[in-house]
Amino acid sequence: MSPSPLPSLGLIGLGAFGAFARPHLEKLFTVHGHDPARPGGATLAEAAGQPVVVLAVPVARLAEAARAIAPHLRPGALVVEVCSLKVRPLATLRALLPAHVEILGTHPLFGPQSGREGIAGLRLVLCPGTGARGRLAGRMLRRLGLEVVVMTPEAHDRQMAWVQGLTHLLGRVVAGLEMPPLPHTTSSFDQLMRATAMVSQDSEALFRTITEDNPFVEEVKAQLRERMAAVLGAPPAALAA
Amino acid sequence: MSPSPLPSLGLIGLGAFGAFARPHLEKLFTVHGHDPARPGGATLAEAAGQPVVVLAVPVARLAEAARAIAPHLRPGALVVEVCSLKVRPLATLRALLPAHVEILGTHPLFGPQSGREGIAGLRLVLCPGTGARGRLAGRMLRRLGLEVVVMTPEAHDRQMAWVQGLTHLLGRVVAGLEMPPLPHTTSSFDQLMRATAMVSQDSEALFRTITEDNPFVEEVKAQLRERMAAVLGAPPAALAA
Repeated sequence: MSPSPLPSLGLIGLGAFGAFARPHLEKLFTVHGHDPARPGGATLAEAAGQPVVVLAVPVARLAEAARAIAPHLRPGALVVEVCSLKVRPLATLRALLPAHVEILGTHPLFGPQSGREGIAGLRLVLCPGTGARGRLAGRMLRRLGLEVVVMTPEAHDRQMAWVQGLTHLLGRVVAGLEMPPLPHTTSSFDQLMRATAMVSQDSEALFRTITEDNPFVEEVKAQLRERMAAVLGAPPAALAA
Repeated sequence: MSPSPLPSLGLIGLGAFGAFARPHLEKLFTVHGHDPARPGGATLAEAAGQPVVVLAVPVARLAEAARAIAPHLRPGALVVEVCSLKVRPLATLRALLPAHVEILGTHPLFGPQSGREGIAGLRLVLCPGTGARGRLAGRMLRRLGLEVVVMTPEAHDRQMAWVQGLTHLLGRVVAGLEMPPLPHTTSSFDQLMRATAMVSQDSEALFRTITEDNPFVEEVKAQLRERMAAVLGAPPAALAA
């Protein structure tokens, strides 16, 4: 008897995150990868015709990808997105995909950098719909060793406005400071530099997703402006000559 | 033969830093501690009459302490200060102390928190004058296991405006943010919180010394204001009803 074959999964987008996720998904699925920028893999119709379809594309390309796969989706397919936001991307998918598919929002709180030594113990936020296949997906993701946290899309975006928004905003502020050489630092300064350096390696597209597309970030920015004015004060008046 | 006695040192100020430093100094000196707020130790005249006198007082109390010890200082005494700034405190001591004493600026880049497990390997900035006793003091401090870094007072204050100023300013900004509960964070967010929590435990007096009394901090504040405006943008215009 031959071993029972793995279920099939279509992976749309083989950029930094898609290429990173592929070998992990291949432990559970036969993966049909498609990326229009990387010919030689599965066709769009093949990848989008699988029972599970993962959209590993940036927020800015999500609507375009949804329109492209829509005609090829089979009834009852599970479509998974991996964006850093949840409310708007899930609304986009619900608006553009056929009603017969199930949609699952996920946000892996890691990436090629933090997951390069393996993904066991790393955290993934799951925003399941009401379908049974979303619950099954949570169990499969746990089998990869991930810590799966279930949240509503709005709770996710509210929390990430602080967790990711604050870190990326302050990282961008610090990265642009023109400091002199500082050979003799303190341990709190060193930690601050490590925290801000980690996020400043991320792409400009991810920075914009996290700090502009999340509606709850406006509250973070408003508090930051207020605190900065309170702590830094107004600039000193120009000295009379 | 009895062992040769340790040299004598007067320690003026037995607050958080003076009390922390005392057992370390007692490895090298017989310490005569004086603090007007803590009766029972040496008198001011006894403490200030030793060949080495350490002023462990905040910047705001330095001039008052200098005036108090001046009449009791013996010719050729070495007076050591431990402020977080160097240019202004050293100028204050030169203006208020008799010309016959040698003045030594030091800044231990540690304190009761970071030095609670021992001070070996921790860093101390030394701003020696031209006298021979300052060089001798550097050798003695190295015997305590410290990494001694020699700098001019101006170089010290310029570097600390960034190392301490930036960390304390951003620490104060973050400490005042009203964040919701955030059970699911990223590692860069956790590092940012650790860095800012470390400095937010320091006293209000130290915060003011580091972020207001150092003239070079104005450049740090100006750059922060500019970067914040660039990254945060202007507040959104009020929506018309």
